[in-house]
Amino acid sequence: MGSVVRLDQGKVKKGAARDNPIEVLHALVAEDLREVNTVIVERMKSPVVLISDLAGHIIASGGKRLRPMLTLAAAKMCGYAGKRHINLASCIEFIHTATLLHDDVVDDSELRRGSATANAVWGNKPSVLVGDFLFSRAFQLSVEDGSLKVLDILASTSAILAEGEVMQLMTSNDTSTSEAAYLEVITAKTAALFRSACQLGAVVTGRPAGEEEALKAFGLNLGILYQLVDDTLDYSGAATTLGKNAGDDFREGKITLPVVLAFRRGNEEERGFWRRVMEDGEQREGDFEHALALLDRHGALADCHERARHYGAMARDALGLFPDGAEKRALLGVIDFCIERQS
Amino acid sequence: MGSVVRLDQGKVKKGAARDNPIEVLHALVAEDLREVNTVIVERMKSPVVLISDLAGHIIASGGKRLRPMLTLAAAKMCGYAGKRHINLASCIEFIHTATLLHDDVVDDSELRRGSATANAVWGNKPSVLVGDFLFSRAFQLSVEDGSLKVLDILASTSAILAEGEVMQLMTSNDTSTSEAAYLEVITAKTAALFRSACQLGAVVTGRPAGEEEALKAFGLNLGILYQLVDDTLDYSGAATTLGKNAGDDFREGKITLPVVLAFRRGNEEERGFWRRVMEDGEQREGDFEHALALLDRHGALADCHERARHYGAMARDALGLFPDGAEKRALLGVIDFCIERQS
Repeated sequence: MGSVVRLDQGKVKKGAARDNPIEVLHALVAEDLREVNTVIVERMKSPVVLISDLAGHIIASGGKRLRPMLTLAAAKMCGYAGKRHINLASCIEFIHTATLLHDDVVDDSELRRGSATANAVWGNKPSVLVGDFLFSRAFQLSVEDGSLKVLDILASTSAILAEGEVMQLMTSNDTSTSEAAYLEVITAKTAALFRSACQLGAVVTGRPAGEEEALKAFGLNLGILYQLVDDTLDYSGAATTLGKNAGDDFREGKITLPVVLAFRRGNEEERGFWRRVMEDGEQREGDFEHALALLDRHGALADCHERARHYGAMARDALGLFPDGAEKRALLGVIDFCIERQS
Repeated sequence: MGSVVRLDQGKVKKGAARDNPIEVLHALVAEDLREVNTVIVERMKSPVVLISDLAGHIIASGGKRLRPMLTLAAAKMCGYAGKRHINLASCIEFIHTATLLHDDVVDDSELRRGSATANAVWGNKPSVLVGDFLFSRAFQLSVEDGSLKVLDILASTSAILAEGEVMQLMTSNDTSTSEAAYLEVITAKTAALFRSACQLGAVVTGRPAGEEEALKAFGLNLGILYQLVDDTLDYSGAATTLGKNAGDDFREGKITLPVVLAFRRGNEEERGFWRRVMEDGEQREGDFEHALALLDRHGALADCHERARHYGAMARDALGLFPDGAEKRALLGVIDFCIERQS
């Protein structure tokens, strides 16, 4: 586990930024994260100019780096003292970025994190191919790590992510989608990568199976609630802060939990509305506002947050077997941050 | 090396199908190829119906399986007696198929091998995602193999393929593309996978570096000539037999060697024509026929074939250090097949 000095530093930083758990996490892994960013910049380079340009755009509009921070913090919590976690955290971010590129192509998105998406700037073609390039780079990095267990985790996770995206495509526009089917989709497309990001912290440290399982469970539940809240914000968040167009899911007919709940709780007239706008794609002026009113009538958004808190509770308990410390507190703080974020 | 019985079988089959080197190669590795097909069918399965459907479509319209046959024959020529080459050949085909799926999206192709492309049937979205799924499956298969050297080869090759595709996008519509730049593109997007397919035959058998290098050189040159002939056929092949629309490259403004040569050998008026149709994309009735006349005037297609024969000669000599045998003759036969194919 961390030394006294490091724990103290963690405490000081936590105190200084009590209200922003992501800042606390960031401060705790700042040095490692700088190394991760160096690896990312270095490995995104290619003699092919367009790849470097597009990759540079992604770095510039880079997100919170939440997933690699999870790997770094989990490794720290497990007492890891080496350097392998740097490359593995970079790997996780590469896979995530590749997925984002392909996602934006599939969704025809134009905004991501407040910036124009790569496909909006360069078109779909380079986005598909640079996504492939980043996937390959992720595998090159993990091959360099040399652990077959790590490679197995990352290769399987990638397959699951792709399956999740395809499942999402299949439930798209289908108002009969159940909550279970929705959970299956977000578990595969989002939570699986969170799970692996956390798991790698234990794997790289060679911790016993129990701790590895605990970190997997933490990551899985955190990932589920993260996506659940993300989907809820699409009907409640401030579009400009989110850097995503609120109402995107609605316009695309993407069936997420708010709609699943409102549809099931609604009367036949309301279901007719959801079928028209989500299945038939016949959307008129004022439909989004009507959708918001229906979600409100049935308490769908509030209950989505309630569901998120349930997964948060499971994530919290999963870490129960780890002794108290700055890293554990930082990881637990991420749960609250993800539940309470407004954008 | 192969036993007397196997060599004899090879000879008999070669005699029976003297004029079709692909059949000779096929007969030589038929048993292994059946196992490869079983692995492919098995590993393309997914609980996600759309993935299985789309994958089934690809299998049904499956090509010659040239690349996995190269791995199988190269391993046989090296005297390999195990089973690892089955999974590795399947890996190569998975990577190839994933690339095809993404290629067809990038090129907006509607026909491939005489069948509707997956993107024409299901749209671009599933094609992008199922491509990702197949890439991941390829890596899962190679992780199961467990050799870090093999993993390194496959991960690096995937990155090179993606770089090649992006390079192709960058030279697209650029009539100033040089022959050297064209060669760089096709080496990365096509020949690198041929090279690795052959190399794996030596790697899996643990042959000395000299033989591994020889097989790499054979595969590389075979891949270059394969793509060179492919690009030439786009201006001379029978569209229906090729299962590809002849003139596709022309319509897309894709700059391939026939155009590179005709542009450089042409006068200013001719270059103006190429700039209009390939760079500005202003194509009119009769332009394709005029392009064919210009290619003919400058002997561009004949010289592309001459160039292909040059790479064929290098591929042939690369195998010089292997003793004579059915596998070697079959691999050499592929060179002739690829140069002489009309579709």
